[in-house]
Amino acid sequence: MNTADLGLPVDVPSTALFTDQYEFTMVQAALKAGTADRRSVFEVFTRRLPGGRRYGVIAGTGRVLDAVENFRFDADVLGFLQAQKIVDEPTLEWLSTYRFSGDIWGYPEGEVYFPGSPILRVEGSFAECVLLETVILSILNHDSAIAAAASRMSAAAGGRRLIEMGARRTHELSAVASARAAYVGGFDSTSDLAAGFRYAIPTVGTSAHAFTLLHDSERDAFQAQVESLGRGTTLLIDTYDVAEAVRTAVEIAGPELGAVRIDSGDLLLVAHRVRQQLDELGAQQTRIVVTSDLDEYAIASLAAAPVDAYGVGTQLVTGSGHPTCSMVYKLVARARSADPAAPLEAVAKKSLGAKSSIGGRKWAARRVDAEGIAEAEVVGLGPVPADLVERQLLVELVKNGEILGRESLETARQRHISARAGLPMSAIQLSRGEPVLPTEYV
Amino acid sequence: MNTADLGLPVDVPSTALFTDQYEFTMVQAALKAGTADRRSVFEVFTRRLPGGRRYGVIAGTGRVLDAVENFRFDADVLGFLQAQKIVDEPTLEWLSTYRFSGDIWGYPEGEVYFPGSPILRVEGSFAECVLLETVILSILNHDSAIAAAASRMSAAAGGRRLIEMGARRTHELSAVASARAAYVGGFDSTSDLAAGFRYAIPTVGTSAHAFTLLHDSERDAFQAQVESLGRGTTLLIDTYDVAEAVRTAVEIAGPELGAVRIDSGDLLLVAHRVRQQLDELGAQQTRIVVTSDLDEYAIASLAAAPVDAYGVGTQLVTGSGHPTCSMVYKLVARARSADPAAPLEAVAKKSLGAKSSIGGRKWAARRVDAEGIAEAEVVGLGPVPADLVERQLLVELVKNGEILGRESLETARQRHISARAGLPMSAIQLSRGEPVLPTEYV
Repeated sequence: MNTADLGLPVDVPSTALFTDQYEFTMVQAALKAGTADRRSVFEVFTRRLPGGRRYGVIAGTGRVLDAVENFRFDADVLGFLQAQKIVDEPTLEWLSTYRFSGDIWGYPEGEVYFPGSPILRVEGSFAECVLLETVILSILNHDSAIAAAASRMSAAAGGRRLIEMGARRTHELSAVASARAAYVGGFDSTSDLAAGFRYAIPTVGTSAHAFTLLHDSERDAFQAQVESLGRGTTLLIDTYDVAEAVRTAVEIAGPELGAVRIDSGDLLLVAHRVRQQLDELGAQQTRIVVTSDLDEYAIASLAAAPVDAYGVGTQLVTGSGHPTCSMVYKLVARARSADPAAPLEAVAKKSLGAKSSIGGRKWAARRVDAEGIAEAEVVGLGPVPADLVERQLLVELVKNGEILGRESLETARQRHISARAGLPMSAIQLSRGEPVLPTEYV
Repeated sequence: MNTADLGLPVDVPSTALFTDQYEFTMVQAALKAGTADRRSVFEVFTRRLPGGRRYGVIAGTGRVLDAVENFRFDADVLGFLQAQKIVDEPTLEWLSTYRFSGDIWGYPEGEVYFPGSPILRVEGSFAECVLLETVILSILNHDSAIAAAASRMSAAAGGRRLIEMGARRTHELSAVASARAAYVGGFDSTSDLAAGFRYAIPTVGTSAHAFTLLHDSERDAFQAQVESLGRGTTLLIDTYDVAEAVRTAVEIAGPELGAVRIDSGDLLLVAHRVRQQLDELGAQQTRIVVTSDLDEYAIASLAAAPVDAYGVGTQLVTGSGHPTCSMVYKLVARARSADPAAPLEAVAKKSLGAKSSIGGRKWAARRVDAEGIAEAEVVGLGPVPADLVERQLLVELVKNGEILGRESLETARQRHISARAGLPMSAIQLSRGEPVLPTEYV
């Protein structure tokens, strides 16, 4: 990857070790058995949505492409695998020139998905594909969980602005990916500077209680902040007495005061009081930002409150109760040789029920009704019916190892808005429900 | 940090941008107001444990020390802050030479904690300390959440081995930190090679259904695996029929077969049947590894089953229902100048109840009863009572910017075993309860 292009401050030299050990030992055993180069098809899908959720949101596709491109073995990595005797010498030799040379198709980033949707399809030799399992699932399971929560919050917020503020509640790099996924899911900005740096997501900031407490008085603190950051700044008004703080704030900044932030108390009640007070003081344009353990339900409950923006932390970066998806990466078909002409045979685990899967290389399309609203997720193995050809969901992301699917985050964000808008209205109900589309297998 | 020493494949050049924007703008405003260099004390604490949990576990301390040392501003980072107009020129100038030069004391890694425990205390100028808020909280909130879940699982597992297998269920670098935290909390090994590389945690691997499906028959797959990896390998026996797989496995590997893995079905029932079958086939030494959405409750429910090791994924890396802690980083005291002789004044947020905090620089000690079992977490502001001097919990981690607190992960792991053993017996009950120690303020 050209790190200069991407301003790569929070990436890693290689993604090859974000991998479960068994992927490597399976490659070793398959190399020895002569089966490593059998043409294979793996698919990512999920058997269910998190309980009560009505749709899923794909996020992380762009990061998957980076990870595939960075899946390389340098001397340090090979040295580790050798020293720890993870794999034998022939396998080390094979890994040393590893580059993914196959094809990847997938639902594009921002798209919605349902149980059984073939979210990503990875094709190539068994060995080159199986190695990618762990890192692909890490990225998609994490990022899609955050995007799904973000999407629900953005639906609940209506047109009001949403600020991602959860960096302190999750791993520092998970935070960066969360800000990215939240943006795809409909957030407007983030407080996380690394996310601004890495992905050019708009960043914002307010002020903390520590800043007020540092100074000899709240007045001193507000004065210091306004003098340095201008009247357009956001003052935090709940360190001592809120009404007094609002008075002081407008006195110092005037009616041009950008915004005030409320971070505790009964936000509905306090927001109403603060709005009234601001208006009485002539600060009709001053916005109100609320924060404090918000989730999609709290956001919805503030719909009637005079709130201009929501800052969301913990519940966003933990997926609002569902911090991961249950996507799996399964071998669904393989040939008996590397020969491109050798026929693909469907394969599937058969034992012990619950974890069985459907073999075969699949396509997917979203069927719409007469009004253009989605009515089913159609997944099939054979030829695509004529009426669904134009409605297919998988796009080409990697061809013969070459990354084709890079796109801007803005594109994914817009795609999500369209995809969600194309679902039945009940999709954006916050209450627990079934997936809004049935998955039909044809 | 000397990356060569630490074999740094999964780290980042600088941690300075894992920071909320407001930390920077507060520094700018304080620099302008002349308050940036006021001597300040910040404390990390939590107001509550996750609902029903009886103790918390500190993890991530070692990563915090790395993050503090790596909190530097290179040209790229400064260029970003400048281009995005995050801060003004005097602030950029100040940041360009930033090195944390203060002191950090904290509960050592692996120690247990309770609501109000002053887990970490950061002292220095306001500006140098406030900048560290986000990254310190990211690390401690994430890693401690995972360690707490790991600790409960290790208590439930008794002496049986625990393998961390959650990489695919969380962000790829969160996974590495999770494997580390799980090890502190009592796990024995991980499947995540990056965690083995970065932190020298023992790594293990088994096999996946894909490997069996790749081959023309289960027999071919087992043969390939045993031929390449030896008879000590772990064969996955639930792709088709379990009883047939066990028969084939022992036929191929003989009674020296290392282990079999069961990844689906009623694990209690299947483990009993498989054990009986293995014994009948003479494979009395072959171990049974179970995996499949295990959590501490499922592990406990298998106590009577003939299981030798548990592989835990999703529920570990998502903190078993509590993927984050609620640690906060609060200014608790500050002087009115940088003068070391200037007295520290306690400060605390007072508004709107629930989020208020206790001002003042605190010590903490764990009082024990006559049998040496902990009976209270004592937190105080004044002099330490004589009987508690030797039982103080905070240790010196950083002095005048110099990292003193580095230690091996093994040390933290052993510390956790001792600390948990020193709690009342009810600490390791899995049922929901109150914190096992009351926090007393003196």
